[in-house]
Amino acid sequence: MKPQVLIVMGSDSDLPVMKAAEDILKQLRIPYTMTIASAHRTPERTMNLASEAEGKGIDVIIAGAGMAAHLAGVLASHTIVPVIGVPIDSSPLGGLDSLLSTVQMPSGVPVAAMAVGKTGAKNAAIFSAQIIGRKDIKVAKSLKDFKKKLAEEVDRKSEALEREKE
Amino acid sequence: MKPQVLIVMGSDSDLPVMKAAEDILKQLRIPYTMTIASAHRTPERTMNLASEAEGKGIDVIIAGAGMAAHLAGVLASHTIVPVIGVPIDSSPLGGLDSLLSTVQMPSGVPVAAMAVGKTGAKNAAIFSAQIIGRKDIKVAKSLKDFKKKLAEEVDRKSEALEREKE
Amino acid sequence: MKPQVLIVMGSDSDLPVMKAAEDILKQLRIPYTMTIASAHRTPERTMNLASEAEGKGIDVIIAGAGMAAHLAGVLASHTIVPVIGVPIDSSPLGGLDSLLSTVQMPSGVPVAAMAVGKTGAKNAAIFSAQIIGRKDIKVAKSLKDFKKKLAEEVDRKSEALEREKE
Amino acid sequence: MKPQVLIVMGSDSDLPVMKAAEDILKQLRIPYTMTIASAHRTPERTMNLASEAEGKGIDVIIAGAGMAAHLAGVLASHTIVPVIGVPIDSSPLGGLDSLLSTVQMPSGVPVAAMAVGKTGAKNAAIFSAQIIGRKDIKVAKSLKDFKKKLAEEVDRKSEALEREKE
Amino acid sequence: MKPQVLIVMGSDSDLPVMKAAEDILKQLRIPYTMTIASAHRTPERTMNLASEAEGKGIDVIIAGAGMAAHLAGVLASHTIVPVIGVPIDSSPLGGLDSLLSTVQMPSGVPVAAMAVGKTGAKNAAIFSAQIIGRKDIKVAKSLKDFKKKLAEEVDRKSEALEREKE
Amino acid sequence: MKPQVLIVMGSDSDLPVMKAAEDILKQLRIPYTMTIASAHRTPERTMNLASEAEGKGIDVIIAGAGMAAHLAGVLASHTIVPVIGVPIDSSPLGGLDSLLSTVQMPSGVPVAAMAVGKTGAKNAAIFSAQIIGRKDIKVAKSLKDFKKKLAEEVDRKSEALEREKE
Amino acid sequence: MKPQVLIVMGSDSDLPVMKAAEDILKQLRIPYTMTIASAHRTPERTMNLASEAEGKGIDVIIAGAGMAAHLAGVLASHTIVPVIGVPIDSSPLGGLDSLLSTVQMPSGVPVAAMAVGKTGAKNAAIFSAQIIGRKDIKVAKSLKDFKKKLAEEVDRKSEALEREKE
Amino acid sequence: MKPQVLIVMGSDSDLPVMKAAEDILKQLRIPYTMTIASAHRTPERTMNLASEAEGKGIDVIIAGAGMAAHLAGVLASHTIVPVIGVPIDSSPLGGLDSLLSTVQMPSGVPVAAMAVGKTGAKNAAIFSAQIIGRKDIKVAKSLKDFKKKLAEEVDRKSEALEREKE
Repeated sequence: MKPQVLIVMGSDSDLPVMKAAEDILKQLRIPYTMTIASAHRTPERTMNLASEAEGKGIDVIIAGAGMAAHLAGVLASHTIVPVIGVPIDSSPLGGLDSLLSTVQMPSGVPVAAMAVGKTGAKNAAIFSAQIIGRKDIKVAKSLKDFKKKLAEEVDRKSEALEREKE
Repeated sequence: MKPQVLIVMGSDSDLPVMKAAEDILKQLRIPYTMTIASAHRTPERTMNLASEAEGKGIDVIIAGAGMAAHLAGVLASHTIVPVIGVPIDSSPLGGLDSLLSTVQMPSGVPVAAMAVGKTGAKNAAIFSAQIIGRKDIKVAKSLKDFKKKLAEEVDRKSEALEREKE
Repeated sequence: MKPQVLIVMGSDSDLPVMKAAEDILKQLRIPYTMTIASAHRTPERTMNLASEAEGKGIDVIIAGAGMAAHLAGVLASHTIVPVIGVPIDSSPLGGLDSLLSTVQMPSGVPVAAMAVGKTGAKNAAIFSAQIIGRKDIKVAKSLKDFKKKLAEEVDRKSEALEREKE
Repeated sequence: MKPQVLIVMGSDSDLPVMKAAEDILKQLRIPYTMTIASAHRTPERTMNLASEAEGKGIDVIIAGAGMAAHLAGVLASHTIVPVIGVPIDSSPLGGLDSLLSTVQMPSGVPVAAMAVGKTGAKNAAIFSAQIIGRKDIKVAKSLKDFKKKLAEEVDRKSEALEREKE
Repeated sequence: MKPQVLIVMGSDSDLPVMKAAEDILKQLRIPYTMTIASAHRTPERTMNLASEAEGKGIDVIIAGAGMAAHLAGVLASHTIVPVIGVPIDSSPLGGLDSLLSTVQMPSGVPVAAMAVGKTGAKNAAIFSAQIIGRKDIKVAKSLKDFKKKLAEEVDRKSEALEREKE
Repeated sequence: MKPQVLIVMGSDSDLPVMKAAEDILKQLRIPYTMTIASAHRTPERTMNLASEAEGKGIDVIIAGAGMAAHLAGVLASHTIVPVIGVPIDSSPLGGLDSLLSTVQMPSGVPVAAMAVGKTGAKNAAIFSAQIIGRKDIKVAKSLKDFKKKLAEEVDRKSEALEREKE
Repeated sequence: MKPQVLIVMGSDSDLPVMKAAEDILKQLRIPYTMTIASAHRTPERTMNLASEAEGKGIDVIIAGAGMAAHLAGVLASHTIVPVIGVPIDSSPLGGLDSLLSTVQMPSGVPVAAMAVGKTGAKNAAIFSAQIIGRKDIKVAKSLKDFKKKLAEEVDRKSEALEREKE
Repeated sequence: MKPQVLIVMGSDSDLPVMKAAEDILKQLRIPYTMTIASAHRTPERTMNLASEAEGKGIDVIIAGAGMAAHLAGVLASHTIVPVIGVPIDSSPLGGLDSLLSTVQMPSGVPVAAMAVGKTGAKNAAIFSAQIIGRKDIKVAKSLKDFKKKLAEEVDRKSEALEREKE
């Protein structure tokens, strides 16, 4: 099946974080592909990934990067496919650097920023599904089930806690 | 024409910022509707807006709010329609409060955060179009033209500057 | 005995922090109940907890949550029972995200924010007692004893230190 | 009528901010008194205000201060009456200094922190009413009306906006 | 004379800041050229400016940009000519966003960050001269004179102040 | 010998940090005393320590505290003896809370803030000696020796490094 | 009369802030001298000011500077006379840069940091008097009067406010 | 071979970070020398290192320091040789203190700031080579090879990842 989501990360050290996105896409049965490209070390490769994405049927690009995280922004500058940015906490500044570099995009070229780290990677995958869900009724259905399961899990845990406290 | 984008803001004082989103949607000929709902003062109204959005054909929700900006998050908890959050700079803390309240969503319920303020509102509209462009070839086409115009504008300005400096 | 304080946390991973509130309530003999509800994953459950609180005789709600901590705010929007928010440090941003999301509530719907983490959970329980102490003379008495013990503990430790240094 | 709420501010320059608390208390018909006391310039006066508060029938103390805002903390150390802190933005650091000085109280002596500035002052008054509402059914009733009016105001504004956009 | 320094800015709104760099280069008689290129709106133009710089005899690139300031980083990824980044304060976040986006470059592709705003633009020009001064003895000489004048100016002002205070 | 420096800390958990001050005072042969007093848990004790200090011959008070570090400020409000504040990093906010609570003292009641943590404790002791050195020529002499030793230590280490690199 | 306090500022643009120090010293009748020296533009002058201070009878140095405020630190490295640093808010970063550059001095060379801006300048003068007051009983007496006047002023203002509210 | 780059660090505890600069310089075959000098503990030594640098043929100075990192600034005030500053994360404030102290240099005396920590040390060495590369064609050539290798490494890793995911 042709991939609909392209996951890009700035370095292989970002893989443990970005796997969280992969796990959710698998769970929601959304075909994806995953690669490494550095906005600064491989600018041409990054540019090509973005400019060829639409032609290859990619519906969403997820980009994870740390520090002065330019990856999502550089990808977004070369395509009209929605780009979701996952700021990664890989410097002593606690992720504030990658968060601001990802979210504060200038007028005209948006990046959809998620939370810093693994939670952000997971949510990026869910948000991808939400975008695809606008045209694919099966994905929309999966998301509703997923949302229900999230609620049920909280219910189960709160019941367990309440029982324990009785 | 039925609105595809729902713009919600937490207070009427956010209107000058959120108009920037409206302007872009008009320019890209995407039908929208605009309203006020407070996550805290009108929680039911907010919940209803979100849970009825999909049924009404809404493809994207844009939510602008300041301070402990919960609006986008509350909307996202009641729908699988993608929610884009625009943090608004309306407290002495310079927008850091609304930015973190918008972007740091917990696992399972993503919000796509844009830059703080007007630039974010503008980009939220463009990102909405990018989402819709995944299923509507005409919107995709408009976005490509828009992207080209952005570049041409920069070119024109840089030529003017260079001429002036000669 | 009917619970007077309702402790809610956004996730079971917040339990180690929120237990600090439980310990103090036990010590002050204030009946409480403890549960899990996520503002984003179980919004209806959260809404119901808040809107039924007053009827059930709850005098104070303590809400602990991390990241874009909306839990306290969402609870406060559905009740006039005082809500105390405990920001939990569960992201790489060091708790600044949950602190600002908890404290910067917009006009009309206050949340009483405590310090980030365990100290905040402990203080939330003491503050609950202070609220209840306004109508229950026994609780007011307990608080005065508690305050005295705090002072005595410091005195004992400072004497020990001074003896050691002689 | 004997005052139930004591509003203290660190300096007369804080009056324009703290008046927002006064306005709400008047609106909710809660008797109050208002004074100036500096934790650093008049420590005895501050101590006396706090230690005499309970005896005078004060149910809540609201303390507004800027910079290294110790006022609320110092008051809280001398009483078991609940103290609400309003951080005031009066230094070049944008209120982050007064917010952290107010909210990060050590274990044992809580202060209920509100948002920075006028919004916080307003919310401090509402929260005072919520505390008093736990024992005074008339105040509880006023708060419910107040909450309803807040919602109606948003409804009215959103209708106006929607009409204008038609 | 062929330009040795290329000044690039992300938008024509950055011109008032970047003129401070121009003024110093004129004063030090270093030939320069000045243009506009946006990392996000005109990525190809930006790439070309960088990759052609060395061939055209450019010795230093000065890049000024605001918000998620990627301009300097994108330029640096396409050339071995030293790139100096000037963070511009153009968002409500007070320049912290552009500073971190400029300075926190990942391993392998450095950008030399200057202070936020006009001071940074001025210093970028001086630093350019310091780089060129490593191979051009005349520029080194100009810099020594410049440094002496800086000191003399302070001396003159301090004498004036001291005289006034007598 | 009568103590000239009074070291106070807010909790016995601050002892490992504040011992760094003790070590320096011993080294400089300045008599001191060390105790625990909490601005919030033992306000009277704190007040007494400060107001009796001058009479007891104390020339400098060093106060170490974490979180909303009010200790130094409360001490300073009760004496004209110079108070040096050492912010201690004991919350998830990385010491920014205690730093701002210590340094941002309002007009009229100064506290001399040192760096966060052990370095600050060490420097507080040196600064105490500098104050005492204004009237005690022996202490001034010790400080000069200390300063020389600091320099010699750097010299020795740099020689070792340079030898190693040859 | 020979000056006991040396006020140094990094630039003549800092004068409006540093005059606040001057005013207090005049009020407390402490002889002072005031000059300009830049740690970076006139390093020799700065070094000489510091190393000659003790010989000239200077008891305290007050140094005000903005941005990467190195002035106080550089002065402190050349003398054992106590140096008080006043961070000045002169960049878009709101004084956080000058505050951290002033207060975070490394081990061995303390600077006593005051609050950012005018309040800090005022307090620097009071702290100078507190240092001198350790050996000069007249200055100690002046400080006690000053402290009393501070309290009386607050009392007067609070009475005025209370009368107005009756 | 005469050293072209002078690496200075504020303390021997900075060596593990600054070795990253050394490794790159070795790899690029640029002769260097490495020493320790503290802006505050050995100001004369620091001044001499800077003022003698040009005469000794030094083309770039790299200065690494933590906390209120004045080392780079002090060096820059005594020479026209370009100074690159590496902020080192050695306090509880996460490197924000050393970053701002390094980058926010006042007008007239620039320091080229790199990222916080090891990445910054590495990039400082590369940037040194870029400066030297402006006059030494062999170094320019090495840099081009280095840049190519950086890209090849990313390519190799991304291929490995893609293969693994097939």
